[in-house]
Amino acid sequence: MAQASELSLEDAVAQSPRKWVYLFSEGNAGMKDLLGGKGAGVAEMTNAGMPVPPGFTITTEACNEYYTAGKRFPDGMWQQALAALRQVEAQTGKTFGDAKNPLLVSVRSGAKFSMPGMMDTVLNLGLNDETVKGIIALSGDERFAYDAYRRFVQMFSKIVLDTKADEFEKIIERYKEETHAQTDADIPSDALKHMVEDFKQTARDASGRDFPEDPVEQLRLAIEAVFASWNNKRAIDYRNINKIPHDLGTAVNVQTMVFGNMGNDSATGVAFTRNPSTGERKLYGDYLVNAQGEDVVAGIRNTSPIDHMQEEAPAVYQQFHEIANRLEEHYRDVQDMEFTIEKGRLYMLQTRTAKRTAAAAVKIAVDMANEGVISRDEAVQRVEPQQVVQRLLPRFDEQDVQAARAANRLLARGVNASPGAAVGKAIFDADRAEAAGKAGERVILTRVETSPDDVHGMYASQGILTSRGGTGSHAAVVARGAGLPAVVGCEAIRVDYEQRQFRVSGTDTVVREGDELSIDGATGEVFQGALKTVEADFEHDTDLQTLLAWADERRDLGVWANADYPRDADRSVAFGAEGIGLCRTEHMFMEQERLPVVQEMILAETPEKRQAALDQLLPFQRSDFEGIFRAMRDPKTGAGYPVVIRLIDPPLHEFLPSYEELLVEVTRLEDKGDNPDELAKKRELLGRVAQMREANPMLGLRGCRLGLLFPEINVMQTRAILEAAVNVAKEGMRPQPKIMIPLVGHVNELREVRRQLEAVAEEIASEAGGQVEYKFGTMIELPRAALTAGQIAEVADFFSFGTNDLTQTTFGMSRDDAEGKFLLQYVEGLPEPGLKEPVKILKVNPFQTLDRDGVGRLVRIAVEEGKRTKPNLEVGICGEHGGDPDSIAFCDEVGLNYVSCSPFRVPVARLAAAQAALARKASQKQAERDK
Amino acid sequence: MAQASELSLEDAVAQSPRKWVYLFSEGNAGMKDLLGGKGAGVAEMTNAGMPVPPGFTITTEACNEYYTAGKRFPDGMWQQALAALRQVEAQTGKTFGDAKNPLLVSVRSGAKFSMPGMMDTVLNLGLNDETVKGIIALSGDERFAYDAYRRFVQMFSKIVLDTKADEFEKIIERYKEETHAQTDADIPSDALKHMVEDFKQTARDASGRDFPEDPVEQLRLAIEAVFASWNNKRAIDYRNINKIPHDLGTAVNVQTMVFGNMGNDSATGVAFTRNPSTGERKLYGDYLVNAQGEDVVAGIRNTSPIDHMQEEAPAVYQQFHEIANRLEEHYRDVQDMEFTIEKGRLYMLQTRTAKRTAAAAVKIAVDMANEGVISRDEAVQRVEPQQVVQRLLPRFDEQDVQAARAANRLLARGVNASPGAAVGKAIFDADRAEAAGKAGERVILTRVETSPDDVHGMYASQGILTSRGGTGSHAAVVARGAGLPAVVGCEAIRVDYEQRQFRVSGTDTVVREGDELSIDGATGEVFQGALKTVEADFEHDTDLQTLLAWADERRDLGVWANADYPRDADRSVAFGAEGIGLCRTEHMFMEQERLPVVQEMILAETPEKRQAALDQLLPFQRSDFEGIFRAMRDPKTGAGYPVVIRLIDPPLHEFLPSYEELLVEVTRLEDKGDNPDELAKKRELLGRVAQMREANPMLGLRGCRLGLLFPEINVMQTRAILEAAVNVAKEGMRPQPKIMIPLVGHVNELREVRRQLEAVAEEIASEAGGQVEYKFGTMIELPRAALTAGQIAEVADFFSFGTNDLTQTTFGMSRDDAEGKFLLQYVEGLPEPGLKEPVKILKVNPFQTLDRDGVGRLVRIAVEEGKRTKPNLEVGICGEHGGDPDSIAFCDEVGLNYVSCSPFRVPVARLAAAQAALARKASQKQAERDK
Repeated sequence: MAQASELSLEDAVAQSPRKWVYLFSEGNAGMKDLLGGKGAGVAEMTNAGMPVPPGFTITTEACNEYYTAGKRFPDGMWQQALAALRQVEAQTGKTFGDAKNPLLVSVRSGAKFSMPGMMDTVLNLGLNDETVKGIIALSGDERFAYDAYRRFVQMFSKIVLDTKADEFEKIIERYKEETHAQTDADIPSDALKHMVEDFKQTARDASGRDFPEDPVEQLRLAIEAVFASWNNKRAIDYRNINKIPHDLGTAVNVQTMVFGNMGNDSATGVAFTRNPSTGERKLYGDYLVNAQGEDVVAGIRNTSPIDHMQEEAPAVYQQFHEIANRLEEHYRDVQDMEFTIEKGRLYMLQTRTAKRTAAAAVKIAVDMANEGVISRDEAVQRVEPQQVVQRLLPRFDEQDVQAARAANRLLARGVNASPGAAVGKAIFDADRAEAAGKAGERVILTRVETSPDDVHGMYASQGILTSRGGTGSHAAVVARGAGLPAVVGCEAIRVDYEQRQFRVSGTDTVVREGDELSIDGATGEVFQGALKTVEADFEHDTDLQTLLAWADERRDLGVWANADYPRDADRSVAFGAEGIGLCRTEHMFMEQERLPVVQEMILAETPEKRQAALDQLLPFQRSDFEGIFRAMRDPKTGAGYPVVIRLIDPPLHEFLPSYEELLVEVTRLEDKGDNPDELAKKRELLGRVAQMREANPMLGLRGCRLGLLFPEINVMQTRAILEAAVNVAKEGMRPQPKIMIPLVGHVNELREVRRQLEAVAEEIASEAGGQVEYKFGTMIELPRAALTAGQIAEVADFFSFGTNDLTQTTFGMSRDDAEGKFLLQYVEGLPEPGLKEPVKILKVNPFQTLDRDGVGRLVRIAVEEGKRTKPNLEVGICGEHGGDPDSIAFCDEVGLNYVSCSPFRVPVARLAAAQAALARKASQKQAERDK
Repeated sequence: MAQASELSLEDAVAQSPRKWVYLFSEGNAGMKDLLGGKGAGVAEMTNAGMPVPPGFTITTEACNEYYTAGKRFPDGMWQQALAALRQVEAQTGKTFGDAKNPLLVSVRSGAKFSMPGMMDTVLNLGLNDETVKGIIALSGDERFAYDAYRRFVQMFSKIVLDTKADEFEKIIERYKEETHAQTDADIPSDALKHMVEDFKQTARDASGRDFPEDPVEQLRLAIEAVFASWNNKRAIDYRNINKIPHDLGTAVNVQTMVFGNMGNDSATGVAFTRNPSTGERKLYGDYLVNAQGEDVVAGIRNTSPIDHMQEEAPAVYQQFHEIANRLEEHYRDVQDMEFTIEKGRLYMLQTRTAKRTAAAAVKIAVDMANEGVISRDEAVQRVEPQQVVQRLLPRFDEQDVQAARAANRLLARGVNASPGAAVGKAIFDADRAEAAGKAGERVILTRVETSPDDVHGMYASQGILTSRGGTGSHAAVVARGAGLPAVVGCEAIRVDYEQRQFRVSGTDTVVREGDELSIDGATGEVFQGALKTVEADFEHDTDLQTLLAWADERRDLGVWANADYPRDADRSVAFGAEGIGLCRTEHMFMEQERLPVVQEMILAETPEKRQAALDQLLPFQRSDFEGIFRAMRDPKTGAGYPVVIRLIDPPLHEFLPSYEELLVEVTRLEDKGDNPDELAKKRELLGRVAQMREANPMLGLRGCRLGLLFPEINVMQTRAILEAAVNVAKEGMRPQPKIMIPLVGHVNELREVRRQLEAVAEEIASEAGGQVEYKFGTMIELPRAALTAGQIAEVADFFSFGTNDLTQTTFGMSRDDAEGKFLLQYVEGLPEPGLKEPVKILKVNPFQTLDRDGVGRLVRIAVEEGKRTKPNLEVGICGEHGGDPDSIAFCDEVGLNYVSCSPFRVPVARLAAAQAALARKASQKQAERDK
C-alpha cells in the first residue's frame, strides 16, 4: 500500500495552506471552477447515489499554484492526495500497490470547460510486476491482466515519459506478425507479457530512466503530467479557438479503475440522453463488449448502438436508461455519459452537458422548452449564436457523413476555422486554383498555410484546407471574411508542393492534386471524395423559426441589415431584418455599365461636364433606391421599414484605373514610340490619376469631405433618394429614407451638408407638391465625432457607429495592412526567442469583436453625450461588429436602438440580442437583490 | 440743418429698443466692445479734458443688428444719430448743411481691434454746392474749400458709390496737365471747382445715380458704407490673419472735421509716444504742414519728423508732448496718436495702443517694466510670442528699408504669411526655381498661388511671394512649415507666367524673371532690389534675454526641444531648452553612408543577415547619442538634461527605393530585353518592395509594431542609447536617457517592449559593472492610447503626446493628404454657389493649433487617468503644437510637465508658457474672488 502518510484527509488538509483535494463525495456540480467539469460531474453523481467508482479530485487551484511555484506541487497537496487515496482504498476494500487485491486507478485531467482529447489521461495506474499477479488472480484472466498492463505501460510512457507512440505501434505490429494475430485482441497472453518488457525497455531508451515500478511514484508522475498537459500546444490552441481563458488550470481526477474488458459480461460505452446530431429525443450512443474506453475511441472494433443493449443486457439497459433520465432531469440538459459494465455491474464514469450540432442544439432547446423542462428564456440562452450560422450554411448529409466515416474516408480533423461544407478538387497552388475556379471547377485550395499572395486563389475556391495555423491564421481570417468554409491547422496532412499531393500522417493515404475532398468547416473534418451537401432552408426550419420568434420577444435591440441592392434587401427581410442600417451607395457606382459614367464625372474638367455625368447617374440610383424601398416593408403589416442610405464614402480614385497599370502602359508606349496619340492620352490620364493619389486614402479625401468639395454629388444622391421615396410613396406604401453622412469629424461638416440636403428636399417637395419625409444622420466613425457627439447631435437625427473605421482610427491600424502584416501575430502571439510561449498582445482581433476599452469607450461617450443633447436620438451600429455576438452584447449594454449586419447574420444577431437582453436583465436583478 | 427729428438724444434712446449712439462724452476706454477702439479712445480723451473735436459713436451692436436685420439700420438708430448730431451742432456752434456756418464731419469705422486701412472712412462730409460757400467764407480760402470739396466727392464716390479710384486719378492728371501743375497742390481753385463737377459726373456714370447733395443723406449713406466695409474682402482676410472673430462688428465714429490744411499754421500728423520700430523712448512721428491726414498716408509730400515741430511751433509741440506723456501714463502703454492743428489749435483725433515691431515690443516691455510703469508680469504679457519668432529671424536693415521706401522701391504690401526677410531673384515657375536654387542662386518663388506641385520649388527658394490667397493658403502653410518667409495675397502684383514677369498694379513697374526682390514676411512688404539683411543675435539680445528670464521665472511648463542631431541639441540649449523631448532616431538612418546598411537590414532574408546589418549601424547610433548627451547639459550647473529618444517609428519601406521608379525601371528593362541579369535583380527588388507596400502606411507596420515583429531593431537601438549613456557617464556627467516607444495602442505592446529593453539594460549593466539609469515611456499618439492611459501608465514612466499623429487619427485625416486637398478649404471656406460667404468648417488648422474639443479631450483624459494610476507620471508634448502659443496655453491648463518644440521655437515657447501661467493664475484668482 501507499508507503506515505498515515494522516487522514482532514488532518492533511488542516496541515496545508489550503484544501487541494476533494473526495468525490465532498464535491457537487456547482464546484466546476475548483474541481473542473468532470470532477464536479462525478461528485454530483456520487452524491445523487449513482454507481460511480470511488475517487478524488485535485483542484484547479492546485494546478495553478503548481505553475506559480515554478512547477512544484503546492505545499500539502501530495499529503492530501495520499490521504484521499487511503479513503478510496477503504471504500473499495482494495489497496494501492498490493500484490493480492490491488487498487488500480485512472488519472484524468478535467478543466472547467470540456476540452475533449486535448489533455492527457493514464489508465490502469498501479500496475507493476507484482500487482499484475493480483489482477490475474482476481480476474482469473491472465491475458486480460497483461493486456491491461501493456496498455498502462504504453500510455504512461507516452504521456509521462515522452516516448513516441510509433515505437509501441511497431512493437505491437512485430508481435502480431510473430504470433500470426489478426488483431490486437488475438495476441496471446504470453506475448503480451513479453511486450510489457519490451515497452518498458523502449521507454527506458527514450527517457533514459527506468520505468517506475512503485505505484505511488507512478501516481505522482501521472498527476504532474496532467498538470503539464494544461499547457501543451493542442490545449493552448483549443482554448484560443474556443476563447477559454488560459489561467483556469485543470483539475486531476484519480478514480478507481473498473474494467469493461473483463469478459463478455463486461462492456464500455458512451451515450447521450438525446441524439446530439439531430436532437431527437432518444437515448443515443455506442458500446463495445469486453473492451476498454480507448477501444471505443480508437474505432478498431465496431461498436454496437446503445439500443442493442436492450436485448443483450436488458437489466443493465433498464438501469442505465433510468440513470440517463435522472441525469437529464437533474441537469436540465442533454447529458453525454461514459459508462462501464464490469462483470454485469454498471458504473457511471462521467456525465457532462453534451456537445451538439447546430441542428440538434436548436431542436433540443425548442423541444425541452415545449416539454416544460426548461423555460423559453432558457431555450433562447441554450443555443450559441454561432450555431445559428452553422444551421444556415450548407452542410453535409448526415447519412453520407456516417457512411464516409464507416468507409474510413474521414482522413483527418483540423481546426474548424470557418463553418460550412465544401466539396472540390484538392489544388495545391493559388494560381492553379484560380485557373480551375475560372474554368468552372470546384476547388479546395490546400496549402501548408496561406499568405496574402494566395488570396486570389482562395476567392476562386469552394473551401480552404491548411495543415498549419489556428483560427486566427491568415487562411482562417480571410476565409471567414469571404464566407468560405475552412479547416486549418490540420496537422495530420503532410502537404508536398513538389509532388502536388498530401499524405495523411500515420496512414498510406495519399491525396493527389485533382482528387476530390470534402471539408466541414464547422467540425474541422476532412473527408476523401465528394459528400452530398444539404442546403439550409431557413423558411421552413420550424425549430429555428420558433426559437428566433422567442428571441424576438426577448430582445431590446432592433436587428437591421446592411444591404446595397434590392436583392439583398429582399434577403434581409426574409431573415427577419426590420430595417436597413447601411446601404452603401457607391456600390451602385461600381457596376459595369455605370463605371465609365462615374469616371467621366470624376475626371470632368468643368462643373457642367460633371453635372452632365451626374445627370446620367441619377436615374440608375433612383431606380436602385425604389427597389430597395419596395423590398423594405414589414411582411405582416406592409409598413415601410427604415432604410439608412449612406452618401458616397470612398475616395474617388477608387473608381479610376490603377496608377501602377497606367504607369507601366505609359512606359511601354514611351519605349515603343509608335503611337504618340495614345501615349498623350494615357499620359494625360496618368497625370489625372496621379493628382488624385493619396498617401493614406483611408484618411484622405473621402466621406463627407467629398460632398463638401463637390456638392453636386450630394445633390444628385439626395435627389435620387428622395425622388425614389416620392415615387414609391405614390404606390401606396410609406418608405422611411434616412440619409446618412459618412466620416464626419466636426459638427460644421454635418451642418453644411444638412444645408445642402434641405435645399434639395425643398426643391423636391415643391416639385412633388407636398412634404418629403426623411431623417438626417451621421456615421460616428472617427474618434473626434464620438468625442464631440454632444455637438454633432444638435444637427443629426440619428447616429450609426461605423465601428470598422472607428476601430481603424482608434487603434491607428489600417485593417488592410494590419491583418496581413502584424495583427495576426498580435492575436496568435509574437515569436519571442527568449520565451517559451509566444507573447500575445491582443486577446481577439478588434475588427471581429469590438474593443470595449478603447472603441467601446468612445461609443459610450457618444451615446451618452449625444442623448444628453437630443434625448430621442436614434443610435445604431453598422460596422461588421453588428453581427458579432460579443459585440452585440456590448451594444445592448450601452443602449443602442439597433444593430445592423450582413443579411446572412441577421438570425444570429436576433438570437444574440435576445441573449444579451436576458443576461443584462438577470444581472440587473442580481444587482438589485445584492442591494 | 438736419431736417429730421427734433428729439433729444435721451428721448430718442428712450423710444428705441436700445441705446445705439453715444456722444464722445458718454463713453470711456473700457467700452471697446461697444464703441470700438477708436470710439472708446476719443471718449476717454474727451473725458480726460483733451482737445478732441466733438462727435459721437454708433455702436458695434448697431452694426451687428444691421446685418442680422438684413442690412437695415436697427430701429431707432438713425433717430439717435440725428439727435446726437444736434448735440454736436450745439457744442460746435455750427450747423450741418448750413450754408453760412456749416458743420462738416468725418465718418470712420472703428472696431474693437484695430484693423488699419482695412475699412472705410469719409472725410469732409456735409459739403455740397451750398455749404462749400460757407467754408469759403469762414476760411477765406476758396482753393482750400474746393480742395476739401473735391476730396470729399472723390472719397465718398469711391467708398459709397463704388466708383473706381483710377477714374479720379485720370481726371486729376488731366487737370494737372491743363493747368501745368507740378503737384496736386498747384492746381488752381477754379480748376478744382470744375473738377468737383467732373467727379460728380464720373460718380453718376459709375453708379447710375446723382451724387447726393443732401448732407443728411450723405451721412446715412456713409454710415451704411462703413457698416458694409466690415465685411469687405480685405477686412475679412485681415481678421483671418489676425484671428479676430468675424462677429464683433464695427462701430462708426462721426466727428467734427478739423482741418490741417487751412494754411501754414495748420498741420496734421501721426505720432507715437515711443519709436514703434526700435522701442526708443522718444516722441516719434511725422507731420505735414497745411495738409489733411490722407496726404500723410499717401506719401505724396514729404513729411517732417515730429521734433521739427519743436522749433516750428514750440507751444503746440509743448502741448502735444504733455498730452502724449499723459496718454502713455494713462494707458500704461505706447500710444499711436493722430492729431491735427487747425489754425494753430491742436486737436487730438485718436489715440490707441501702438502697433510695434517685434524689436520694439520687447524693448518697450522691458523698458517700461524697468521704468516702473508696468510690472514684470505685464511686461511678459505685453509681447506676443509671434514677435519673438520675428525677432529671431533675419530682418532687413532698418535704414536700408527707409532708403528703399524713400526711393519708391516698396512695390506693394501683401499678407504677412510667414515671417522673415528674404532676398532673391524673382522666378515664376517651381522647376526653374529648383534649378536656380540648385545652381546656388537665391530665389523668390513668385506665383499667383502655389499648389502641391510647386513644393519642390518652394523648398529651393529663399522666400515665397503670391498674389492670391490668405494666411491659410497653400503657400502660407507650406512656407510656415518650412520656415520660409512668405508674402501672400499680394494683390497689387499682376503675375504673367507667359511673359515671366509681374506688373505692379497702378504703376509702370515691371519685375522680370531674374530681377531681384526683397520680401519681408513679417510686414508683408515687397521691395524691388536687394535689401541688406541683419541676422538675429539671440545671445547678445539683452532685452530679449531679460524678458525671457522674467518669463522663465513665471512659467510652470518646462520647455524642451525636438532635436535629432548633436548640432540641434547645441542650438536647443543655446535657445534655453531644458531637455530634448523628441529625438527621432530614424533620421540617423537616413544619412547617406548609413542608408545602404539600413536597406540591407530591412531586406535581410535571415535573422543573421539582419543582425549583421544592425551590428554595423550600432556604432553610428551610439556615437550620435554620445554627441547628444554631451550637448544636453545645463550650461550653469553642468548637470545632464533629460533626453527623450524615440525608437524607430516610420514604416520600413520609407527607407527603400521608390516602388514606382522600380516599376518603370523593370518595365524598361523588359522592353529592352538586353540585360536579363539586371532585370532579374531589379525584379527581385521590386518584389520585395511590393511586399512591403502598404495601403495606408500611416496606419500600418510602424512604430512599436516594428520592434515587436523585429525585436533585434529595438535591441540594437537600446544598446546604442545605453552604451552611449555609459560612455558619457564615464566622462563625468550624468546623462538622463529616456527611451520612448512610438505608436502604442495597447498596454501589452508597451509591456512586451519594456521586457525586451530591460533585458538589454541588464546585459549592459553587467557589462559595465553597474546600474544603467534610464526611464521608459511612450508616445500617446493614438486615440486608444489616450483612452486606456490608465492601463498604459502601469508600464510607462512618462507620456509624451504626439499630437501630430493624434490629430491625424482623431480627425481621421492624413496631414499629407488633407492639407493639399481639403483642409485648406475647410479653414478658408468652401466656395458655396448658393451663398455669398464661403462656408468655413474649421476656425484653425488643427495641425497648427491643438483642437481642444477632440484631441484636447483625449489629452485631458490621458493626463487625468495616467496620473491616477501613477501620480508622479511625467507628461509632455512633442508634436508641432508644442511650439504654438495657443496650444501651449492648453498644455499649461491641463498640467503637462513640459512642451517640446523645434529649437528655433524654444524662446517662443518660454514666453508663451509664462503668459499661459499668468493668465491661468489670474483667472484662478478671479474665480476665487467670484466665489
